[in-house]
Amino acid sequence: MYSDKVMEHFMNPRNVGMIENADAVGQVGNPKCGDIMKMYLKIEGDTIVDVKFKTFGCGSAIATSSMATEMIKGKTIKEALALSNRAVADALDGLPPVKMHCSVLAEQAVKSAIYDYAQKH
Amino acid sequence: MYSDKVMEHFMNPRNVGMIENADAVGQVGNPKCGDIMKMYLKIEGDTIVDVKFKTFGCGSAIATSSMATEMIKGKTIKEALALSNRAVADALDGLPPVKMHCSVLAEQAVKSAIYDYAQKH
Ligand code: FES
Repeated sequence: MYSDKVMEHFMNPRNVGMIENADAVGQVGNPKCGDIMKMYLKIEGDTIVDVKFKTFGCGSAIATSSMATEMIKGKTIKEALALSNRAVADALDGLPPVKMHCSVLAEQAVKSAIYDYAQKH
Repeated sequence: MYSDKVMEHFMNPRNVGMIENADAVGQVGNPKCGDIMKMYLKIEGDTIVDVKFKTFGCGSAIATSSMATEMIKGKTIKEALALSNRAVADALDGLPPVKMHCSVLAEQAVKSAIYDYAQKH
C-alpha cells in the first residue's frame, strides 16, 4: 500500500520538533480529517536555513512533512512557496489516493508560516 | 481541541511494537481514512497477558490504541470483546467528533485478533 520511501520517512522522520525563536510559525488544520500541523522556520535574508514540524496527523502526514521540510531547507522563500503537495507526494514515489489529503497539511503549513513571516516584515 | 489524556497517550503511547510468536494477530484498515493497524496478543488460558500494536494512523488512532491496550491487558477474552470504541474514547475524556472514526481502528483490531485466535483453537 505504501512506497518504501513513505515507510522510510514515516519510521525516521526528518526535522521533527520545534524551533525556539523561530522567525515564522504556521499552523493549519485539515478539514478532511481534523488533524493539525505546526511548522517553524528560521529565515536569514530570504533563505530558509532551518525548519521543523510537529503534527498530530497520520503516517502519511508525517512522511510528506518530513519530505517537504527536506525539500525547502536551504531554499528561498519564493521557491518554498512554489512547492506543491503533488511534488512532495511524487518525491515519495506516490501516496494512495485516499491519503493525498494528508499531504496537503505540509504544503499549507509552509504557506501559513511564510504568510506569518510576511505579516511581521 | 484534544484532552490532556489524549495528548499524554499520543506523546507516550503504551504497548507500541510487536510480539514475536503472538497467539493472535489482528489487522484492520479504516475505510474512512485508509489507515491501517496491527494488533498482537499473548493469551494464557483465556486471559490476555500481553498486547502490542503498530499503526500508520494519526494521533487519535495512537492515543485510542494505547488506551485500549491498557484496558484489555490482564482481562479475559470475553471482557476484551465487550470493549467499545466509545468506552475507550470516554476513558480519554473524549475525542473531537471528526476523530471518532479513528478510535474504531483499535476496537476492530482487538476483535480481529480474537477472531484469529478463535479460528486457531
Ligand atoms: S488522516 Fe489526517 S493527516 Fe492523514
